[in-house]
Amino acid sequence: MSQEVSNKLRAEAPIGVFDSGVGGLTVAREIMRQIPNERIVYFGDTARVPYGSKSRETITRYSKQILRFLQKFQVKTIVVACNTASAYALDELEAETDIPMLGVVKPGAKTAAEVTKNGRIGVIATDATIDSQIYTKYIKELNKDVTIYGKACPLFVPLVEEGLWQDPVTDEIARRYLTELIDIDIDTLILGCTHYPLIRSTLGRIMGDAVTLVNPAYETAQELKEMLEQRGLLNRTPPALGANPYQFYVSDSAEKFKRFANSIIKYGILSAKTINIEEY
Amino acid sequence: MSQEVSNKLRAEAPIGVFDSGVGGLTVAREIMRQIPNERIVYFGDTARVPYGSKSRETITRYSKQILRFLQKFQVKTIVVACNTASAYALDELEAETDIPMLGVVKPGAKTAAEVTKNGRIGVIATDATIDSQIYTKYIKELNKDVTIYGKACPLFVPLVEEGLWQDPVTDEIARRYLTELIDIDIDTLILGCTHYPLIRSTLGRIMGDAVTLVNPAYETAQELKEMLEQRGLLNRTPPALGANPYQFYVSDSAEKFKRFANSIIKYGILSAKTINIEEY
Repeated sequence: MSQEVSNKLRAEAPIGVFDSGVGGLTVAREIMRQIPNERIVYFGDTARVPYGSKSRETITRYSKQILRFLQKFQVKTIVVACNTASAYALDELEAETDIPMLGVVKPGAKTAAEVTKNGRIGVIATDATIDSQIYTKYIKELNKDVTIYGKACPLFVPLVEEGLWQDPVTDEIARRYLTELIDIDIDTLILGCTHYPLIRSTLGRIMGDAVTLVNPAYETAQELKEMLEQRGLLNRTPPALGANPYQFYVSDSAEKFKRFANSIIKYGILSAKTINIEEY
Repeated sequence: MSQEVSNKLRAEAPIGVFDSGVGGLTVAREIMRQIPNERIVYFGDTARVPYGSKSRETITRYSKQILRFLQKFQVKTIVVACNTASAYALDELEAETDIPMLGVVKPGAKTAAEVTKNGRIGVIATDATIDSQIYTKYIKELNKDVTIYGKACPLFVPLVEEGLWQDPVTDEIARRYLTELIDIDIDTLILGCTHYPLIRSTLGRIMGDAVTLVNPAYETAQELKEMLEQRGLLNRTPPALGANPYQFYVSDSAEKFKRFANSIIKYGILSAKTINIEEY
C-alpha cells in the first residue's frame, strides 16, 4: 500500500470523542460544524455521570476504560470532551497510547491568555476541575503575569439538565456564583465545563459586555482541525449520501441520552447504543 | 455450638446498609437512633452516584455488585437505603441471597396507606423511582381505594448536596414541584428519596400543616427493628467501650464522603475506606 493510500485511509478513520455524559455533545457539535467531513464515534459515560464531583483516581480509571473502548474503532485521534477528565486523566491517557489526544482545557486556556487585556481571568467549572487548578497551570505557562480566579459552580449542570437554560432560578444561582468574579474585575471568563455554553446567554448577561466569554468547545474544534491538517489527517472525503457519519455509545439507557442529545445537536441523533463500560 | 450461642453470634453480626451515596445516611442515622446496639457496615456508591437518573439495568447491576461486597461481612440483614435501588433492584437482590433484605419503599408505602384520610397521597422522588411506579404498586396492594400522585424532583438532590437546605432558591424550586400536589389536595406526602428529609422543614412549610410528611427512613428503621426481634436477631449486647460499631465504605474519595457525612450524622464518622466496587 502506497504512503498516499495509507494516509487517505487513516484520514477517513473516525475521531473518538468522549465525555462523562451529554455535555461533551457541545464539543462534538463544534467539530461537526467546523470540520463536517469527519466521522465521529462519541461515548458518553451516562451510567457513571457526573465526573465533576469525583476524585482524580476514579476519573482516571473511568477514562482509561473509555480509551480502551474507543481504541476498538481505530480512531485517528481522541478528543477528551470533558473538562474534568481533561484536567485529571489526560496525561495518563497519553502515556497509554500513540493515538494523538486533545483535551478541552489547553485550547480554552490558550485563548483566554490571548484575549485578556487586564490580566484577570475567571474560570467557572466543576468542583473537580477547579480543585485540579489545571487552567491556572496552563495559562501561567503561556503568560505568567495574569491572575486566574477559579469558581466551582456545581449547580449549573443539574440546572442545565433540568432544562432551566433561561430561568430566574438559574439567574439567581449564576449571580451568586459570579458576584465575586465581577467584584474582582475579570475581563475574561472561561466556561470550563461542557454544559455551560448552554447557559451562555445567562452568563453573558450577568457578566456584562466588558467580559469576554471563552467557550473551550469552540477552541478545541479549531485546534483539532489544525492538528489534523498538520498531520495530513483531515478527511477530504464527505460522507457518502445517506451514510451516518456519527455513532453514539453510552453506558446507560440510550433512549434517555437521545432525548437530551437531540436538544443539543440539531443534526439528529438517530441511534445510540448502550455498552457495559466496566468490561473495558 | 448450642442454638442459643449460634443465635447470639448471629445477632452480633452487623447490618449491611447501602445507598448510591450519602443520602442513605439518613436511614443509617435512624437505625443508630432506634436500635443503638446494632453494628452497621455502610456502603455508599459515591463513584457512580446518582442512581436516580439512571436505568433499571444499570441500577440493578450496581446493586448486585454491592450485595456481593456486603456479603463479605457476614451481615445478618441488608437495608437497601436508596429508594431508586429499592424500586428497581430489590426483587433481583432477594433472588440472589438468603440474607433477609429490607428496602425503604415498602415501609414508607405502608405508613402512607395508613395515615391518609382523604385517600390522596403524593410521592416525591427521583425520576427513576417515579418512573418505576413502585410506591403506587405497594400502596395499592394495601389499599386499592387511594390515589397516588408521583412527582419527580430531580433538583432536590443537588440542592441538598450544595448545602441549600434553607434557601430561597430551594423554596422556589420546591414550590414549582409541589404546586400540582397542593392543587389536587393530597393529605399525605412521601419523601421518596433519602436526601429529602434534610429539607423537611422547607417541604413542610410549603405543603402546610394539613399534609402529613412520611419519612421512609424512620419507618424503615422501625420495621427493621421489628423484623430483627421476630427472628431473634436483635443485638442485646451494646458495643464494647471504645469500639466503633459503624464501618463506612465508599467507591470514591473517603475524605469527601466524611465531610458531608459528618453534617448528617452526629455520631462522628471517624473513618471511611475506599474500595473498587467494579471488582465485585
